[in-house]
Amino acid sequence: MIERLALIGVGLIGGSLARALRGAGAVGEIIGCGRSAENLELAFDLGVIDGCTRDPAVAVEDADMVFLAVPLGAVRGVLERIQGRLREDAVITDGGSVKGSIVADAAAVFGEVPARLVPGHPIAGTEHSGVGASFPELYHNRRVILTPLPQTDVVALERVRTMWQAAGAVVTEMDVAHHDHVLAATSHLPHMLAFGLVDLLARQQDNDEIFRYAAGGFRDFTRIASSNPVMWRDICIANADALSGMLARFGEEMTDLAETIRRRDGDHLLDIFSRAKTARHAYVDGVSPPKPEQDPEQSG
Amino acid sequence: MIERLALIGVGLIGGSLARALRGAGAVGEIIGCGRSAENLELAFDLGVIDGCTRDPAVAVEDADMVFLAVPLGAVRGVLERIQGRLREDAVITDGGSVKGSIVADAAAVFGEVPARLVPGHPIAGTEHSGVGASFPELYHNRRVILTPLPQTDVVALERVRTMWQAAGAVVTEMDVAHHDHVLAATSHLPHMLAFGLVDLLARQQDNDEIFRYAAGGFRDFTRIASSNPVMWRDICIANADALSGMLARFGEEMTDLAETIRRRDGDHLLDIFSRAKTARHAYVDGVSPPKPEQDPEQSG
Ligand SMILES: NC(=O)c1ccc[n+]([C@@H]2O[C@H](COP(=O)([O-])OP(=O)(O)OC[C@H]3O[C@@H](n4cnc5c(N)ncnc54)[C@H](OP(=O)(O)O)[C@@H]3O)[C@@H](O)[C@H]2O)c1
Ligand SMILES: NC(=O)c1ccc[n+]([C@@H]2O[C@H](COP(=O)([O-])OP(=O)(O)OC[C@H]3O[C@@H](n4cnc5c(N)ncnc54)[C@H](OP(=O)(O)O)[C@@H]3O)[C@@H](O)[C@H]2O)c1
Repeated sequence: MIERLALIGVGLIGGSLARALRGAGAVGEIIGCGRSAENLELAFDLGVIDGCTRDPAVAVEDADMVFLAVPLGAVRGVLERIQGRLREDAVITDGGSVKGSIVADAAAVFGEVPARLVPGHPIAGTEHSGVGASFPELYHNRRVILTPLPQTDVVALERVRTMWQAAGAVVTEMDVAHHDHVLAATSHLPHMLAFGLVDLLARQQDNDEIFRYAAGGFRDFTRIASSNPVMWRDICIANADALSGMLARFGEEMTDLAETIRRRDGDHLLDIFSRAKTARHAYVDGVSPPKPEQDPEQSG
Repeated sequence: MIERLALIGVGLIGGSLARALRGAGAVGEIIGCGRSAENLELAFDLGVIDGCTRDPAVAVEDADMVFLAVPLGAVRGVLERIQGRLREDAVITDGGSVKGSIVADAAAVFGEVPARLVPGHPIAGTEHSGVGASFPELYHNRRVILTPLPQTDVVALERVRTMWQAAGAVVTEMDVAHHDHVLAATSHLPHMLAFGLVDLLARQQDNDEIFRYAAGGFRDFTRIASSNPVMWRDICIANADALSGMLARFGEEMTDLAETIRRRDGDHLLDIFSRAKTARHAYVDGVSPPKPEQDPEQSG
């Protein structure tokens, strides 16, 4: 049970966690903190938060749990502001899409990463933003990856795990660098391709016609290009090394594939497409969403 | 009204047209033609076709409408086989995803493109194949692009248009080369990215984990990588020039984007992502599917 949750960032991720915890009766009071009065008022009207402030230092007063859900570029400023204002036993955790950056930010601000800071990342989301887009079921049966460090306090880790389980999630653990590599591949890289494709097409002369003749597959393929540009700028910068390496490699592969097509090398094309179809079938269609009861990866 | 439809290729595209025309009472008899007895038997059992043969020359006997829905690489062989076996007034049309190639195939086989050949392409489909995946609503309110040539017979064109309208589609016209350029952008290029991404990830050492942590966005983004590899090999070869040019350019842009990320150039990233989000919103979300009654593009 969380007595007082300080929610720094009351958008899709923070708002959905608040709603889920409230629904599960797992939290006493929730104090929201954000930039604009508008979003905070909406959060209050929706019953997502019980009180609000625009100052993180005020938000964390007396909080036993602090959840950071602001864009990654805003994290360091928040940590600077809350330093020295936290309750002695307060646990800090976050929902950021990159884990190396919060570890670096915390080390820079606190001198070393606090034992009661537990980096985390829910593998759930939509392309919409703000508290209006939040909903309590967002984390149901979705994975949350926690990336504790050697110095992480086991009680703090356990409290964060319990919080996510109360929200319906399946909690797993991973090494910080490994998390950032895996997510670069499965999430950050696809977002770059979707943004890049839509941007390329929008710059074509006949872009009007191009988009008019886009079929259903194109809509699905480019849906993630509707995601929040600021959030994605911050993710790119926070995971720059892993992502830029992977994207550069993908760029080269597409240049090679273009040459294979130009040469009309049908055997090579068939190899690539068959391998991809088989892999997608095996991994994506074959793997059902995690179930809390039976997930082999759920660390206990 | 079509008296006798020869369906060369009874898969998703051909089967769905047959079912739609049958449902609309717009066709008398349907003769299916394919490679495997298995798929043809299934088509017969499902009531999609009234008779079948594995010889295109036999299938087109007495047919007043011939619809080609085989992979593009098989089109020339079919045209060679049906040459001289067609009814005098028979109209030939197709559903191939590239239009330059059938024009070239027909010119090679018949010496010149027959006046009663009307190249066409329904902008509808799924990632599934075979007659078992076909359904009568596939073309409802979806666009079909016809790409007539200067020599195309107007009566033949009108008959093909009427056929697609009976199937529920919205028919528009376009120049052959323009069609192939537009489709390279909206369909062929995205398929290359999806196949390429899944293939790249499948070749990573920790591919198991990578796919396990793929969220919903990844499933949508890569769904088209489950499409038929043979069909896509043929599309790539048939549209090699337009597609390879566009893919090479995309490859370069991704290499540049990787460098922008490596440099942590946030302003440039924000520009790209914002432009893409705006374009997708304006063109994809803003454009509702075509309505037969009010579509300004429907040529009459
Ligand atoms: N969206 C996803 O699919 C997803 C999935 C997993 C993880 N994440 C991570 O979750 C975090 C939040 O994402 P979200 O989708 O919840 O974003 P969101 O809906 O845009 O919400 C962001 C919240 O942070 C506040 N905020 C923005 N900039 C700020 C700043 N400079 N200083 C202080 N507060 C600021 C916003 O307040 P105002 O509304 O007043 O600006 C808003 O309350 C990000 O780190 C992201 O990487 C997102
Ligand atoms: N799928 C889409 O989303 C989509 C959308 C628009 C246009 N198209 C175009 O529609 C055409 C057909 O695609 P589809 O999705 O309907 O494919 P499909 O479901 O795989 O059906 C193809 C049909 O062609 C037959 N066939 C395959 N290879 C052949 C060969 N070498 N000689 C004679 N017959 C052969 C198959 O017979 P067996 O089953 O016996 O092999 C099957 O009946 C393609 O040109 C494609 O470009 C597809």
